[in-house]
Amino acid sequence: MSHITIIGNGNMGQAIAGLTAKGGNTVELIGHEDTSKDVTGDVVVLAVPYPSVSEIIASRGASLAGKVVVDITNPLNFETFDSLTVPADSSAAAEIAAALPDSRVVKAFNTTFAGTLVAGTVGGNPTTVLVAGDDADAKALVMGIVGAAGLRAIDAGSLRRARELEAVGFLQISLAAAEKISWTGGFAVIQ
Amino acid sequence: MSHITIIGNGNMGQAIAGLTAKGGNTVELIGHEDTSKDVTGDVVVLAVPYPSVSEIIASRGASLAGKVVVDITNPLNFETFDSLTVPADSSAAAEIAAALPDSRVVKAFNTTFAGTLVAGTVGGNPTTVLVAGDDADAKALVMGIVGAAGLRAIDAGSLRRARELEAVGFLQISLAAAEKISWTGGFAVIQ
Repeated sequence: MSHITIIGNGNMGQAIAGLTAKGGNTVELIGHEDTSKDVTGDVVVLAVPYPSVSEIIASRGASLAGKVVVDITNPLNFETFDSLTVPADSSAAAEIAAALPDSRVVKAFNTTFAGTLVAGTVGGNPTTVLVAGDDADAKALVMGIVGAAGLRAIDAGSLRRARELEAVGFLQISLAAAEKISWTGGFAVIQ
Repeated sequence: MSHITIIGNGNMGQAIAGLTAKGGNTVELIGHEDTSKDVTGDVVVLAVPYPSVSEIIASRGASLAGKVVVDITNPLNFETFDSLTVPADSSAAAEIAAALPDSRVVKAFNTTFAGTLVAGTVGGNPTTVLVAGDDADAKALVMGIVGAAGLRAIDAGSLRRARELEAVGFLQISLAAAEKISWTGGFAVIQ
């Protein structure tokens, strides 16, 4: 079992807090503007919009050294819904990993809407969390946390695959925003 | 009903020929190296690996003017399975559209494995073809062809979204190649 800190108490932060607690971990949920609390988890989930990540790195970067940092962001341009805000050949996860060289960054939870994490299903299919990262132990730890919560985790490869995971997240959000799918739907992964 | 030419008689070309014929269209299936036959369809599906598209454009580009050209490619680097072969800020569809300025290019069928097009389902969910394009009439025509075949089509937006559709295709192929999913599985779109 792990001790997990989740920064950000929006719908994704709450959903991830719920499922990780259900999996038997100890969980600390911190509002992203609440700087009065220290990060105590071995695993830290950045459950905030991408633009807020840089503030967290600025204020808490040193305390994230040695930890597994989970990036769940989809760095959309929410004004245009027509592009991402990271360089085309990069990803939010790659930018975060570059800014936190002493952390082990894992991409996860960005291709599952909060509703499907809570429900455990998407359209009758098991909710599947796609996980990417360069550190095998860190990735296995996150996949184990997902599995302990009763959800399915799939290893999507190295952290380079975060670029594709963020494209999936972008597409899924744009389809929901255009009402082509609902916020309780999205991509189910069929094995 | 449309007259459809499919260039490329591999598993995707055959699957698309089958479903478009089932939908009541007339279908012409041409091997991609068979230059003896002229393209006669109003809709031309390029069901070939991406590296072969440039040959088709070189030999048949003029005959594609005025037609709806459907790009189904996933431009993976199949040696490394670690990147796409198109520029990071572009897509195969964008490259094809630039090379065929007198055609109306629509991206479709690149996020569905051939097996799920033939079966009509993916893990019990209806197979969904995501369609992107800048010409509303051309996109509606392709969506209608998909719908007439009994599959579901979803409008994924402008041709810029081909970049994300190709990321989905890349990720899906890499998961199947790594045996994380099967070639009859993949992403189901839950509405």
